[in-house]
Amino acid sequence: MNQLLVKENSHLLVSRAMHPQNTQVNIKGCIVGGEKTVVVAGPCAIESEELLKETAFKVRAAGASILRGGAYKPRTSPYSFQGHGEEGLKILARVGQEMNMPVVTELMDSQDIELVVDYTDVLQVGARNMYNYSLLKKLGRLDKPVLLKRGISATIEEWLLAAEYILAGGNHQVIMCERGLRSAEPWTRNTLDLSGVALVKEISHLPVMVDPSHGTGVRSLVNPMARAALAAGADGIMVEVHPHPEKAFSDGPQSLTPKGFSQLMRELDPIARACGRRVK
Amino acid sequence: MNQLLVKENSHLLVSRAMHPQNTQVNIKGCIVGGEKTVVVAGPCAIESEELLKETAFKVRAAGASILRGGAYKPRTSPYSFQGHGEEGLKILARVGQEMNMPVVTELMDSQDIELVVDYTDVLQVGARNMYNYSLLKKLGRLDKPVLLKRGISATIEEWLLAAEYILAGGNHQVIMCERGLRSAEPWTRNTLDLSGVALVKEISHLPVMVDPSHGTGVRSLVNPMARAALAAGADGIMVEVHPHPEKAFSDGPQSLTPKGFSQLMRELDPIARACGRRVK
Amino acid sequence: MNQLLVKENSHLLVSRAMHPQNTQVNIKGCIVGGEKTVVVAGPCAIESEELLKETAFKVRAAGASILRGGAYKPRTSPYSFQGHGEEGLKILARVGQEMNMPVVTELMDSQDIELVVDYTDVLQVGARNMYNYSLLKKLGRLDKPVLLKRGISATIEEWLLAAEYILAGGNHQVIMCERGLRSAEPWTRNTLDLSGVALVKEISHLPVMVDPSHGTGVRSLVNPMARAALAAGADGIMVEVHPHPEKAFSDGPQSLTPKGFSQLMRELDPIARACGRRVK
Amino acid sequence: MNQLLVKENSHLLVSRAMHPQNTQVNIKGCIVGGEKTVVVAGPCAIESEELLKETAFKVRAAGASILRGGAYKPRTSPYSFQGHGEEGLKILARVGQEMNMPVVTELMDSQDIELVVDYTDVLQVGARNMYNYSLLKKLGRLDKPVLLKRGISATIEEWLLAAEYILAGGNHQVIMCERGLRSAEPWTRNTLDLSGVALVKEISHLPVMVDPSHGTGVRSLVNPMARAALAAGADGIMVEVHPHPEKAFSDGPQSLTPKGFSQLMRELDPIARACGRRVK
Repeated sequence: MNQLLVKENSHLLVSRAMHPQNTQVNIKGCIVGGEKTVVVAGPCAIESEELLKETAFKVRAAGASILRGGAYKPRTSPYSFQGHGEEGLKILARVGQEMNMPVVTELMDSQDIELVVDYTDVLQVGARNMYNYSLLKKLGRLDKPVLLKRGISATIEEWLLAAEYILAGGNHQVIMCERGLRSAEPWTRNTLDLSGVALVKEISHLPVMVDPSHGTGVRSLVNPMARAALAAGADGIMVEVHPHPEKAFSDGPQSLTPKGFSQLMRELDPIARACGRRVK
Repeated sequence: MNQLLVKENSHLLVSRAMHPQNTQVNIKGCIVGGEKTVVVAGPCAIESEELLKETAFKVRAAGASILRGGAYKPRTSPYSFQGHGEEGLKILARVGQEMNMPVVTELMDSQDIELVVDYTDVLQVGARNMYNYSLLKKLGRLDKPVLLKRGISATIEEWLLAAEYILAGGNHQVIMCERGLRSAEPWTRNTLDLSGVALVKEISHLPVMVDPSHGTGVRSLVNPMARAALAAGADGIMVEVHPHPEKAFSDGPQSLTPKGFSQLMRELDPIARACGRRVK
Repeated sequence: MNQLLVKENSHLLVSRAMHPQNTQVNIKGCIVGGEKTVVVAGPCAIESEELLKETAFKVRAAGASILRGGAYKPRTSPYSFQGHGEEGLKILARVGQEMNMPVVTELMDSQDIELVVDYTDVLQVGARNMYNYSLLKKLGRLDKPVLLKRGISATIEEWLLAAEYILAGGNHQVIMCERGLRSAEPWTRNTLDLSGVALVKEISHLPVMVDPSHGTGVRSLVNPMARAALAAGADGIMVEVHPHPEKAFSDGPQSLTPKGFSQLMRELDPIARACGRRVK
Repeated sequence: MNQLLVKENSHLLVSRAMHPQNTQVNIKGCIVGGEKTVVVAGPCAIESEELLKETAFKVRAAGASILRGGAYKPRTSPYSFQGHGEEGLKILARVGQEMNMPVVTELMDSQDIELVVDYTDVLQVGARNMYNYSLLKKLGRLDKPVLLKRGISATIEEWLLAAEYILAGGNHQVIMCERGLRSAEPWTRNTLDLSGVALVKEISHLPVMVDPSHGTGVRSLVNPMARAALAAGADGIMVEVHPHPEKAFSDGPQSLTPKGFSQLMRELDPIARACGRRVK
């Protein structure tokens, strides 16, 4: 049956049957899929160099390993802030270098690959582009880690086969990232599917991260869902942090403050240890 | 706005605004909503006294506090095994007494309340009956704890207002139980919504349990989801255990063996401690 | 595979393989499942005898065959209007008799069957009770037509097997009624699944009606969806009509005025004829 | 409230408040959004010139106005047939010219726009690319009709705002196309949302087509859903037709035979006339 394609077809490159040990993705020395649970943090969008630097400084101090920030923002309305583009990429690269943190940013268009790849350490494919097979094929030809978010209503099989598009091209540095499924629940932006995390860890060797910020859309739910993600076996967490969430250009309601992020790191530590891992 | 009824109407009995401290439900001395994380275990259906006794003995030894077992089974097909009815209730009560464990069983029909209430310590309202407001009203008039499962695609607000039906009648001993939402994912039976657990803990004072057996429908996902539930703040776990899952009358693929259940308890202990709680 | 139970098990009583010709349900001479497309109309709730009489008079004049009205209302909040109960049933029966129209009303509790059955010509099982198997079994022992609404997120198989519970008891007078599925779309109350109508007509012999009022929750969508339902093969339409929707106790935003209902009947007539049927 | 963006912001270019009369899109003299209901037909993928020519000849004879065929196929697995690419485009253009039919084909990558635009009369954005805002922006700068399919689980607002991306760039020749939403129903590939068709016709001036082939995934449901689409107000239908569905490279189970397509056209004619329109 088609729906069981991945489980039954042990020849797929994403399948654990093909590659029993966990894949570890090395991002400038930061290992995703190893003993340490990796934390990616930063603002939704790169708004200014000052803000990014302030955020980076604080999340690094609290224990984040990788800095996130968007230069190209996929927005529902064409009239919403669309990101600072190349200028944003430059800011991100400078701040990452200055803070000695690897950086990750989203790519929205296959025509921008050559540009974006020079500024970032990880290329992020957003939920809206998970089915963009042309983009995935091109990413498969690069020698650069890819963070592949799950589509808004994608099945586990579709998500794994999207990763297969990248691996089939020769690029095996893929990190899966669960970010919530569309549901009928009005109180949360999405419904975070942590069973999907456990399932992908079971049937695939690829590392899996969780984004509880987009996954819930509600600040007060970020911490419990981040803790739950670690307990479910996630290899990392990706959270939005903004010094002034109420003034953020986007995603303010789900962003932690730097202080809230420090609190999150304190809550994650004992859970990681209970799972035989660590966050710092 | 209607969808925010619970949050905005602080006069609701289920609301934390009305009742800031956590409600603790006392089941024959076993407290749900206290420091200890409560584990309910047992077979899907009561198949025979021998099997139930064997299961009860083993899950109690591994640390379960409450015994579950169905005498009335809501089955999709009228030709599937429907449960042993009153005979099953008698077995459950006897085994519970012999093992000194409180018992919980599902009630499907408001006409059976008088019968069922005498045999059980907790009355379970299944997901298919969460919208059965006549039944909920009658349960509101009892002095007996109720375990209220979330409907198959119920919103958080609908679930809380279903509880409100019971509290409004005067019965405040309600335990909420998340058991997964219907989704389009074919690999899992349901999609377990742990953000719903965290959200209900935030806006209500009622204790919340999680059923990772129905919530996933997949044995290998029960342990990671049970761990994640505790990390998200759940007050308890409800799991299906059967000595011979491959021969179970129902729900075999999601049932743990007694040995698997012992392993689960060993995994839950450090997570509970990391959250400042304990499972034994 | 389990999901194909109905299609593969030709021995099911609901299956067309068992009963190739269409079932026709006779409601006091009004045939559902015959050449004429049957229109059921009336208010959501029975508010007063005057209002019901006014509505009945006007919808009958416009071509409705059966009068609807709720005496027991399943409401999300325990503090919303719950219906006038037996007093409402008496009003419904009186108005139906006076207007010479068969009547249909919803039953919420198996304990009320004996009461409700005396006042109504069709017993309606609402979407929230489709999984109430105890209720369905009891309805199977009656000699009275049942209108079985599809559950809020029920699959076609679950819906047909719910009907099987009734047929298995000996009552073959079942009318299926599609009323929309829960979805993530915020602009409509539900997403009306007309392919479900066509599918049930294909694999089962039971007549199928459509409720575009609950199915959309939006007055301006009732007419196009009612027309579409007929074109998809529905045997009837069930719509909410209220003389003053803005003052209705419930469901005002989706209720047609009597004038709007007359317009609907004018729109349905040519569609019915295009399908080889008629509405009057 | 954000969800009502389109309805409340009458300044949006897609809004009917801004442009009360229906937009008509002229495709080489074939008007979409006018009195005639337009039928687009052809195979899922362009497999060979002979097959496409045979199909085109037969669907044109039966009354189809526009020929469809895929050269770039978005497939879940990287190992499935991906389409013949530019060779396919050439075949499509030749057959369209020979048969004197306008053609429509899907574009998957913004880098291919210059190539594809020369071979086709309408550029199709598939459901998987509805959120590909980079692609939409580029299409907004062209002078070529765009057929914009609704995303797999897109809300009406997201779909309309995706169209707004194209209109905002200056290209007002946009045809919306409903193709079914992902749902939990295992018997159909998607759940066709005809209320979305009626809603978009109400709040926007853009023409709306319906694809009952992808919208159901089941051949026997194509005809009833196509009829229902017309009754709901759709301006056109897009169906997959293949001379030998059992041998089709993709989508065989939902493809009509040419004979089946002729039957569909005979069924659509009276429905169109009942709605004051025509299909030929």
